[in-house]
Amino acid sequence: MSNKPTLFTSLSPALLHLYDASNSVVVIIDVLRATSTIATALFNGARSVIPVDSVSRCMEIGRQIEGITAGERDGKIAEGLEYGNSPFEYPREFVAGKTLVLTTTNGTRLLHMALEKGAREIVTGSFPNLSAVCDHLLEMKQNVILGCAAWKDRVNIEDTLFAGAVINQVKEHFTINCDSSHLAEVMYEKAKKDLFGFLKKNDASHYHRLMNFELEKDIRYCLTQDGANVLPIYMEGKLVVK
Amino acid sequence: MSNKPTLFTSLSPALLHLYDASNSVVVIIDVLRATSTIATALFNGARSVIPVDSVSRCMEIGRQIEGITAGERDGKIAEGLEYGNSPFEYPREFVAGKTLVLTTTNGTRLLHMALEKGAREIVTGSFPNLSAVCDHLLEMKQNVILGCAAWKDRVNIEDTLFAGAVINQVKEHFTINCDSSHLAEVMYEKAKKDLFGFLKKNDASHYHRLMNFELEKDIRYCLTQDGANVLPIYMEGKLVVK
Repeated sequence: MSNKPTLFTSLSPALLHLYDASNSVVVIIDVLRATSTIATALFNGARSVIPVDSVSRCMEIGRQIEGITAGERDGKIAEGLEYGNSPFEYPREFVAGKTLVLTTTNGTRLLHMALEKGAREIVTGSFPNLSAVCDHLLEMKQNVILGCAAWKDRVNIEDTLFAGAVINQVKEHFTINCDSSHLAEVMYEKAKKDLFGFLKKNDASHYHRLMNFELEKDIRYCLTQDGANVLPIYMEGKLVVK
Repeated sequence: MSNKPTLFTSLSPALLHLYDASNSVVVIIDVLRATSTIATALFNGARSVIPVDSVSRCMEIGRQIEGITAGERDGKIAEGLEYGNSPFEYPREFVAGKTLVLTTTNGTRLLHMALEKGAREIVTGSFPNLSAVCDHLLEMKQNVILGCAAWKDRVNIEDTLFAGAVINQVKEHFTINCDSSHLAEVMYEKAKKDLFGFLKKNDASHYHRLMNFELEKDIRYCLTQDGANVLPIYMEGKLVVK
């Protein structure tokens, strides 16, 4: 038996129950674009990001704490909110010192699932903060679950690729008896030279969804490593920089 | 809009509910070894294979119809049954004209799930009958769900690879808006030159499980194309050759 901690990848929220979150650091992965935007807002000085699961809750909390309310539904800023899901909406001059109340569907839902399952710790991961995530996992030496937010429970390529990128960097330090992890790493190895081209070539459904909204710039940013290299960690209802 | 039928891949039984089985041909995939053994027994002249979900049910039906009872639990022939899950146990001289009552965990469970969801048609797929499956899907021109049996709901590499092999052959004839399918095909493209070597190199968990039982010969057979090229189709509780 190895003494290394374990690492598992959950390719969809519908598979999270298969893994023991109560004993693990859970990395929430929602590459396009929730967790990329969270890293970016915190990197640019936001005091915290509060992830909420509905527009009404977003408005309510936004009022209470005088926070920035943000979230999209079907590619548009949701009615009643002020801003959208794009990382480019949160430059330092706008977001520094403020609290962002963000509602997203897949990422927020997975985070709350991990919370309900009593995750030991919850952090968020995306290519813009890949190194911060990997450094943290190596430092913690705890069991890890890489949790892909997917799209309405359907596995997606971009979250799988990010899981593969993490595995690629940390695998020597974990026991990985998990085909989903091996699969994610194979995909990443294949894609890493040109992640954008890989999504395009392989017809990733979310790539198409965003390209239809003319968000190529967002996609390229969300696939670029370490542009907002902080570690968002969930504490008392908020994501803050560790 | 394209007039082509759709194709989706469900990487785990826990994801099957995301797809509309009622309108689809569902291909049950349990490469190591249930669906490989089913194809082999039918190819070698078995009259039918009855998939059941428990050892007690297997014994009961075996008695009623004087069938061969078969199934394993934890790598051994289950107590009370006569034979195991290996395709090599069912040569023509033994199985021709007989009915095989087979209990497996993952594959049988998925088949029954597809049945409950009112699948339009259920067939079984494995590398030994890859071409028969592809020919059938091309002929039917119906929507398709490639259903991986996985391992206790955890995604596995070998079922994913078979889904990829099917997609690789039929994709021009389907609308595939499904990242799981693209992911499966990328994996297959990467693995196809040496499927056995790929499972070994990528530490596939089921590969290890079977290698520990000294079943390399089974694995190699189950990864070889068209050795038992018939199409098992589910009709009135039995898998028969179409």
